[in-house]
Amino acid sequence: MSTPVYNFGAGPAMLPIPVMEKIRDELLDYNGMGVSVIEISHRSEEFEAILARCDTLVREIAHLPDNYRILYTHGGARMLFSAIPMNLLPLKPAQMAVYSETGNFSRQANVEARRYGDIRVASSGEANNYDRLPPFTRDMVPDEASYAYITSNNTIYGTQYKEYPDMGDIPLVVDATSDMLSRPIDFTRVDLMFASLQKNLGPSGLAAVLIHEDLIGHAMPNTPSLLDFKVYNDSHSLSNTNNTFAIYVMCLVMEWLKDQGGVEAMAKINEDKANLLYDLIDASDFYSGSAHIADRSLMNVIFNLPNEELTAQFLKEALENGLYALKGHRAVGGIRASIYNAMPVAGCETLAGFMREFERTNG
Amino acid sequence: MSTPVYNFGAGPAMLPIPVMEKIRDELLDYNGMGVSVIEISHRSEEFEAILARCDTLVREIAHLPDNYRILYTHGGARMLFSAIPMNLLPLKPAQMAVYSETGNFSRQANVEARRYGDIRVASSGEANNYDRLPPFTRDMVPDEASYAYITSNNTIYGTQYKEYPDMGDIPLVVDATSDMLSRPIDFTRVDLMFASLQKNLGPSGLAAVLIHEDLIGHAMPNTPSLLDFKVYNDSHSLSNTNNTFAIYVMCLVMEWLKDQGGVEAMAKINEDKANLLYDLIDASDFYSGSAHIADRSLMNVIFNLPNEELTAQFLKEALENGLYALKGHRAVGGIRASIYNAMPVAGCETLAGFMREFERTNG
Repeated sequence: MSTPVYNFGAGPAMLPIPVMEKIRDELLDYNGMGVSVIEISHRSEEFEAILARCDTLVREIAHLPDNYRILYTHGGARMLFSAIPMNLLPLKPAQMAVYSETGNFSRQANVEARRYGDIRVASSGEANNYDRLPPFTRDMVPDEASYAYITSNNTIYGTQYKEYPDMGDIPLVVDATSDMLSRPIDFTRVDLMFASLQKNLGPSGLAAVLIHEDLIGHAMPNTPSLLDFKVYNDSHSLSNTNNTFAIYVMCLVMEWLKDQGGVEAMAKINEDKANLLYDLIDASDFYSGSAHIADRSLMNVIFNLPNEELTAQFLKEALENGLYALKGHRAVGGIRASIYNAMPVAGCETLAGFMREFERTNG
Repeated sequence: MSTPVYNFGAGPAMLPIPVMEKIRDELLDYNGMGVSVIEISHRSEEFEAILARCDTLVREIAHLPDNYRILYTHGGARMLFSAIPMNLLPLKPAQMAVYSETGNFSRQANVEARRYGDIRVASSGEANNYDRLPPFTRDMVPDEASYAYITSNNTIYGTQYKEYPDMGDIPLVVDATSDMLSRPIDFTRVDLMFASLQKNLGPSGLAAVLIHEDLIGHAMPNTPSLLDFKVYNDSHSLSNTNNTFAIYVMCLVMEWLKDQGGVEAMAKINEDKANLLYDLIDASDFYSGSAHIADRSLMNVIFNLPNEELTAQFLKEALENGLYALKGHRAVGGIRASIYNAMPVAGCETLAGFMREFERTNG
């Protein structure tokens, strides 16, 4: 390839280039063993060192309080749509929880949870096609609720909580699949945060869970073992053979994130990257953003062109210029630029340059 | 590395060298896209082509009948210990199933299944420390049983069914985690076969399920979506982001297996490989096999040395000679040589040569 390719895919998303190069360079011979990291036992000392190192880095980077645990759970975030109600509804006798519906994934989460208890939707952005975050405050959640649930960032609609609601004594569960470790986490408000790896943390197939220890050990009796948080906690996520490749890559991504200056530095970079695009969109009559400005996402920049023909032409020419996977989700159309941690500033600069030129030629 | 390393680990196990080299060579640029296969959407045409190719190859290599489906399920075989009873017990009103207990994993499977219905153990090898396969025949299974369950190959104890029991009208479920596609499959006897990928099929974190279509669509109402076979079947295993790396590698392993001549040729190679070791053990007074000869495994060759000091010395010198991960499972000790499809004949020849020399020096 002569032109560098910038991958704006929503996920599985691009990984940092130094991480990808390291995976390649040591793929056939991990640590001088003469075998690959994907060919060694999850109980080998080498893999256990990777897992321990990943824990240490996550704890350091996230400033994870001592009474929170890190779990690596099978099946990505979607499996947690089932596991969370199965583990947390029994926290209180009413077996009830309250969800805020801010898009496709929070909707799927509350639909799945209804199998297991009394699930209420306190607020929904559906009437506005999820273009803003509906209010979600402590007074909207009954005291009998076992937990309150939000999705931190909505990849399809391009909205994101700037700060999380203060739920007081009610445990707050946050699906941060598309923005975990893209910025600091306020653990005074968050009791359980989870993310599929494939946006900011690694490859697909696995989720990382940051959980207050008091939320572990309450699973319903019919909970499958591999959906029970206590099983993961008691076994250091190795009650069976875990997705060792994903954990290995996540550990490399954490090393890289630490080298970048951690989430504090990354939050600033992510803001700068998003502003390169939003400033252009806000100043343009050709491009139009879809999300309300107060709620828009630093991770997924969603915008539209004047018509579908121009959208198709934009996508075609973008690809010819090495700008890959900019097509919006099928539910909303338009353009989506996913700019997670691994997207370099140069990628956003290149996209902004292309957008200016496209507007100049076609506007 | 000057000496080649042969990896006898039980799993995650070695993968074919040409597969590993191909993963490395195209890791940064899949198919000329300028991005990695682990960085593309599970809904991209490129990934869908991989998934379709994997299906085609599995169907061809396994001689899978038309009325069987292929599912790629999260969490490995252990997740299926829960999913199988949740999906299959409702096949009959008694919600009852019968397991044969031939080792650690069939025991864990029946313990997990007890959460969901009436689970009976028809036969157990426990009294003999699982050194042989207990009888398991149709007359040991009541007509009201929803299914009968066996583990095809037992990695810890080194036993393996030469042929599966004929369960007639009762669906037979086979955990073939450690021998799927190491030999032909008799689908006149098998209704559901599953395997974690990390022995013969790919990296860890995912399972492949070959299932008669009549067994799909019967899940209990409280079954988590990602444990419901119908959800996988209806979505081509893409109801959420699947473990795309594992499916990609499995596809490469299937290409390699086809190049080797498929399961018919591989079965002959595997028999030859195992016989290199078993013939030596049978002729030796120094090494002793632990499994009954009639039931012993072509995948995991388990044997003992005269005492623990010699076992420790054997492991140390083996490692110095590039023979990696020969330590027996902690439950039984001794030596375990796992020789799945990817282990070349040269690996078994090298091990046999080392064993002869070690006996000559220490016997």
